[in-house]
Amino acid sequence: MIEVDTLISGGRILLMDKEMTIIPDGGIAVQGRDIVAVGDRVDIENRYRAAEVIDAAGGIVMPGLINGHTHVAMTCFRGMADDLPLMEWLNDYIFPAEAKNVNTDLAYWGSLLACAEMIRSGTTTFCDMYIFEDETAKAARQAGMRCLLGEVLFDFPSPNFKTPADGLAYTKNLLEKWADDDLVSIFVEPHALYTCSTPLLLDAKALADRYNAPLGIHLLENRSERAQLQTKLGQGAVPFLREIGLLNERLIAFHCVCMDDSDIKMFADHGCKVIHNPESNMKLASGVAPVPEMIAGGVCVGLGTDGCASNNNLDMFQEMDTAAKLHKVHRLDPVAMDARTVLEAATREGARALGMEHLVGQIKPGHRADIIIIDIHKPHLTPMYHEYSHLVYAVAGADVDTVLINGRVVMRNRRVLTIDENQAMQRVQEISARIKAGMRI
Amino acid sequence: MIEVDTLISGGRILLMDKEMTIIPDGGIAVQGRDIVAVGDRVDIENRYRAAEVIDAAGGIVMPGLINGHTHVAMTCFRGMADDLPLMEWLNDYIFPAEAKNVNTDLAYWGSLLACAEMIRSGTTTFCDMYIFEDETAKAARQAGMRCLLGEVLFDFPSPNFKTPADGLAYTKNLLEKWADDDLVSIFVEPHALYTCSTPLLLDAKALADRYNAPLGIHLLENRSERAQLQTKLGQGAVPFLREIGLLNERLIAFHCVCMDDSDIKMFADHGCKVIHNPESNMKLASGVAPVPEMIAGGVCVGLGTDGCASNNNLDMFQEMDTAAKLHKVHRLDPVAMDARTVLEAATREGARALGMEHLVGQIKPGHRADIIIIDIHKPHLTPMYHEYSHLVYAVAGADVDTVLINGRVVMRNRRVLTIDENQAMQRVQEISARIKAGMRI
Repeated sequence: MIEVDTLISGGRILLMDKEMTIIPDGGIAVQGRDIVAVGDRVDIENRYRAAEVIDAAGGIVMPGLINGHTHVAMTCFRGMADDLPLMEWLNDYIFPAEAKNVNTDLAYWGSLLACAEMIRSGTTTFCDMYIFEDETAKAARQAGMRCLLGEVLFDFPSPNFKTPADGLAYTKNLLEKWADDDLVSIFVEPHALYTCSTPLLLDAKALADRYNAPLGIHLLENRSERAQLQTKLGQGAVPFLREIGLLNERLIAFHCVCMDDSDIKMFADHGCKVIHNPESNMKLASGVAPVPEMIAGGVCVGLGTDGCASNNNLDMFQEMDTAAKLHKVHRLDPVAMDARTVLEAATREGARALGMEHLVGQIKPGHRADIIIIDIHKPHLTPMYHEYSHLVYAVAGADVDTVLINGRVVMRNRRVLTIDENQAMQRVQEISARIKAGMRI
Repeated sequence: MIEVDTLISGGRILLMDKEMTIIPDGGIAVQGRDIVAVGDRVDIENRYRAAEVIDAAGGIVMPGLINGHTHVAMTCFRGMADDLPLMEWLNDYIFPAEAKNVNTDLAYWGSLLACAEMIRSGTTTFCDMYIFEDETAKAARQAGMRCLLGEVLFDFPSPNFKTPADGLAYTKNLLEKWADDDLVSIFVEPHALYTCSTPLLLDAKALADRYNAPLGIHLLENRSERAQLQTKLGQGAVPFLREIGLLNERLIAFHCVCMDDSDIKMFADHGCKVIHNPESNMKLASGVAPVPEMIAGGVCVGLGTDGCASNNNLDMFQEMDTAAKLHKVHRLDPVAMDARTVLEAATREGARALGMEHLVGQIKPGHRADIIIIDIHKPHLTPMYHEYSHLVYAVAGADVDTVLINGRVVMRNRRVLTIDENQAMQRVQEISARIKAGMRI
């Protein structure tokens, strides 16, 4: 018998490997931060013993979900302004509220509250772009969550930096400060082509290249952006990115609603990654991204919720349900975006999009133990015919019972162990009271 | 002091009246099945006392949601076959599974399990069409849920009747048996124009007229149905319904995805009602119903989940979120279907669609006490800026804490008091095991 830290015993284990293996009554041995073995329960129990045994009998055990695009501190602006024309929403609410209110305090507490929400709905890794990302990194460490973070960069001043050079310097500090961290990774995030000059884009790329880090950018989120960029650049956004050398396998582009076949082919040829955010794209009336075409064309596509101001939650189970349904109705094809494809985008493919395919996204020996257990002994989850379809179309975030990240139990029986949730809610309520007073809403 | 049965004390009370009144710290007095008073908490507490006081402080108190179109016993087929072409789904899975498996046992236990799921997600009234509806009525009585039920009628035999005449006789029996019931109401439900002959439609109408009952029908769910009916009837479906006299204020039409402006005008002129089922329409790739046009044109529109085989849950909070977002992206208009409009469809307008506007859909003295309390002290519901937007875009079914129907507490602190949920789950699991064995799935 080999002694390990933790055994997960029983449950249907979805490996989320390419073969989509399901072990009907499985076991997982976890040592330190890693999965060391996975197999039939009896076999695992015969080979391993642990002081901590988590009983997953009757549940579904699977890799934690990967939220590929967030602005987590924006929990503080959750539902501040909805159902408005896009420019009114941005110019009269979001931008002034951010300019007036975003500071290290908002960034830390907004991020910590978001971590509680994400853990509670089965997300174990998130990829974030916002302001004061060092605070988000600290919050993720406190929560015990895995993340890929970048400070948003643009030509104009932010609450955190006066010039793009300051923003790049802040990002460089983040890259060095968190270089050896087990949970926090840093990348470089120019906001978008309509907010970043070419020199800033090139500096961002040089910084990303120097640290071998990914580079993330909002891209072609709606028709008006596409038209505006065509005028500004004198060519399409994707050919422009190719021209300045940004298309490579470390590019992560968010939204990509208005990509045409030639853009998709360029992305596929260069190994660029896409994060799809269907609920945000619906709520902001941005459009429907050509995700089935991207996947068929060989582009790696992950899934994300976007920020709370445009969703208004961080629930990846709800996002999966929407992703599967949206493409069906958009193309009047009930076979489009089946449950398996959506679940892959939220796990294995999401990990690949973030350059983390060697660490997470599957239940696999040698991978980090980022594992969620779903309680399906509930009226709305009875009966179950097919696991993937159940997870996408019936399971909700609140059905996640237990969460491990990096081998550590961060939620057990729906009790989050790493965050003082009452304190986080209290702090964010105080922040939102100040926002309300300042905005007169 | 007036003695009443129950006081709900504290919480933000959303009356859902036409003025959309919100009482920030309210109280509700309930006597028997009725709301007798609603107002400021202090005022209500000064005027009424009760043995049972429900503390709703910090929560949202609102009318229970109205699920306008269900096939509740189909919980037994939840997720049996997904991501398939429509005809394959129907002909190879749903129809054979129904023919082989639907009996009184499935109808009762499937319905009872659905009632547990609906109560847990804040639905207090549902409108159902299926087979052996007397069993669904019994299950709703057991659960303490309000409902409007009808036996599905069509030209071919069902597991419950051999001829349309038998189906009509069964419906007549239901109408008489449940005539004086406080919770169960019966209506007449010819399945659709492509499954019912004109004589059956006329007999159904005569029966509905005789009992002053509504008449429900699936209508124009997708393009192929529209084209098929145009050929079969030699005219549009709605003009045909007008010609045979079915258009009146008691007609409830489900789906109505493919209605044009002239259809909408005819519906408005005759006071016909529509139930919108966005998630089912997405998953089956049916299309997007012109709901904003219907509402602007004066048609009363309620909201429904459809059955579990095409959704795959009965969560009206998720349905509201989807309804609000779907119309925005479909018309690229972020102002379409705002949160308030969607919430009205799920409450006051939903009640009007079912002919129950004098009973439910608002918090109002003289109305039945069908009330839900939502716990918003949760990370994903912090902070809150606007109640309607919060309910539609952030709240999930699992956030409903307490449910009263007809003055009776049917769920308290997420414990359903009227249903043995373990027994219902067990029975449905046994039924699904038989279905699986028979279908070899």
